[in-house]
Amino acid sequence: MNYERDSIRRMHGYTYGEQPDGADVIKLNTNENPYPPSPAVDAALRAFDASTLRRYPQATADRFRALAAQRHGLSTEHVIVTNGGDELLRMAFTTFLDDGSTFGTTDPSYSLYAVLAAVQSCEVRALPLGDDWSLPRDFAEQMNDVGARLVCVVNPHAPTGALIDADTIGNIANELDGVLVVDEAYVDFVDPALRHDVINLVRAFDNVLLLRTLSKGYSLAGLRFGYGIGAPTLIEPMLTKTRDSYNVDAIAQAVACAGFADLDYAQSTWDRVRTERRRLRDALRMRGFDVPASQSNFLLATVPAEASLGAATLYGALKAHGILVRYFDAPRLDDKLRITIGDPSQNDRLLATIDAVMAAAR
Amino acid sequence: MNYERDSIRRMHGYTYGEQPDGADVIKLNTNENPYPPSPAVDAALRAFDASTLRRYPQATADRFRALAAQRHGLSTEHVIVTNGGDELLRMAFTTFLDDGSTFGTTDPSYSLYAVLAAVQSCEVRALPLGDDWSLPRDFAEQMNDVGARLVCVVNPHAPTGALIDADTIGNIANELDGVLVVDEAYVDFVDPALRHDVINLVRAFDNVLLLRTLSKGYSLAGLRFGYGIGAPTLIEPMLTKTRDSYNVDAIAQAVACAGFADLDYAQSTWDRVRTERRRLRDALRMRGFDVPASQSNFLLATVPAEASLGAATLYGALKAHGILVRYFDAPRLDDKLRITIGDPSQNDRLLATIDAVMAAAR
Repeated sequence: MNYERDSIRRMHGYTYGEQPDGADVIKLNTNENPYPPSPAVDAALRAFDASTLRRYPQATADRFRALAAQRHGLSTEHVIVTNGGDELLRMAFTTFLDDGSTFGTTDPSYSLYAVLAAVQSCEVRALPLGDDWSLPRDFAEQMNDVGARLVCVVNPHAPTGALIDADTIGNIANELDGVLVVDEAYVDFVDPALRHDVINLVRAFDNVLLLRTLSKGYSLAGLRFGYGIGAPTLIEPMLTKTRDSYNVDAIAQAVACAGFADLDYAQSTWDRVRTERRRLRDALRMRGFDVPASQSNFLLATVPAEASLGAATLYGALKAHGILVRYFDAPRLDDKLRITIGDPSQNDRLLATIDAVMAAAR
Repeated sequence: MNYERDSIRRMHGYTYGEQPDGADVIKLNTNENPYPPSPAVDAALRAFDASTLRRYPQATADRFRALAAQRHGLSTEHVIVTNGGDELLRMAFTTFLDDGSTFGTTDPSYSLYAVLAAVQSCEVRALPLGDDWSLPRDFAEQMNDVGARLVCVVNPHAPTGALIDADTIGNIANELDGVLVVDEAYVDFVDPALRHDVINLVRAFDNVLLLRTLSKGYSLAGLRFGYGIGAPTLIEPMLTKTRDSYNVDAIAQAVACAGFADLDYAQSTWDRVRTERRRLRDALRMRGFDVPASQSNFLLATVPAEASLGAATLYGALKAHGILVRYFDAPRLDDKLRITIGDPSQNDRLLATIDAVMAAAR
């Protein structure tokens, strides 16, 4: 017998990027940082006293909350720590979105949102981005019209890498009737010359929830450590009601604090990723790919129309050569590949393999 | 403005046992194992390569699933790994229980159940246990009558320590229309002479979900690592639809595998806890406490009616002396203390402090 709720039975789960076991695969498919985490992470792991594991962890990861609050010039009450950024998204859905109501986002967007909406039997209203992947001007108004109590935008956007500026985000927050989640999973890779910063919005608006993660910027995808930033009235119900009682383990807390505190090291990886982002974008454009500017650690590259093979075929050919990139079989994306910025030698091998594959297909 | 869903606004969160920072406090309040985890845990932590953290973890913790399947004579498809046992409970609610429907359990029970039910606006039907903390004979029938699609029983029971035998559990599973979660958080501490084992029920019944955790039996409360055992048709929707994509981090997977594999060590701590359980129970009964036999790593002790202080006062006095036990301000429990079995010296100090406090109150 099937005991699932009707809504669960009808839905499909999240499809994630492949995570192969082989260490010799070049993984440019899930936006991991190509550089290892800070040496402070290794030191924290070595220093951890395993005998303390018999006790429950500090339930709300307050040491990290204090570090993050200090970094952002906020108070601990503005911060919640989560088991990866995905947990923050789930909690936002559970806390702010009624079953069967409408969830708002953009099209395209992070595909997990629709899965979380389906779990709660919610309609998804996804407004198409413009040709340059910009938001519709009346985004907030349209979201209010459909009664969306929770709206998520990825910024910098995935899978395009486009950045919405802080003023635009502020205007949306101001107009929106519901909660605005700004998923900043990739914000560490934004060009510092842009001085992009939306932290102040959580003081100005009580409906803004920012998502941060250590997965990409701090090379800690394996650790599952994210955090949310928002007005204390938004944070409190998630912290005290809908969060699993001990959601982040004691080792992760210690390791995350060490990695997060070593900002200089993390920034050095962001710089290197940005340098390679420029180089890889130029190299792909020289090869005829259309590649919009990205403020993230990936590029969305349109395979040249005149090429004798399409995006799906190129994806498969790269995979056969031990290079994983991401292909989305979806409208507007099925002629493109999302390519994570690797280190210089990985990017070199990617380019050489693209050249070889395309020459062979000619 | 308050953006919470009505159901969330109305509810209260889980109240957990105190987790003091001070290492000199004797913590007999949250049922942690008094002994440290296996030396293999420390070795796994030392051997962990921090540089691998830049990559996502294996999403479904398959190495642990294989170990658990082998231990229990089942297949990997019978097992799901969760971020502590609490996550399995939350996923069971999300997957099998419709919003606004009825959840079934016993009274008393693990207080988290009612919190999870409140998150989904569900009614809680909690059937009172008998004077000896046994289940009502018509438990399944009553649950069916109220339409409970999900029913949780703790076995051994918390906070009483009473054990429901496998035949009774099997009869309930057989009669119940919905899913039966057997929360076996404390099952490792059952007297082996009883040969208590309900694993076979997951083959016989497709509606039985067993909860296991490494928190107590393997001294790993700080790690947040639990697992569920059930028919593949029960496990699959949680594994692929309602679970956070990467719910257990890479370090936790490595450490948990090491701790779980060292069964001999874990069993040696269970033996020591059982020895102390007998001694502490006898000592408390000699002092006039009523203490039913417990198959768990705690005792539920009724403060003697003739004592000049009640349970709440004794709880406070012990706390003032640096000993934490658990007091529940609830009907049938408010004259009792739940006392975790400590190591011999902790239990000695507990008894000596009880003697001193009660003598002073006379």
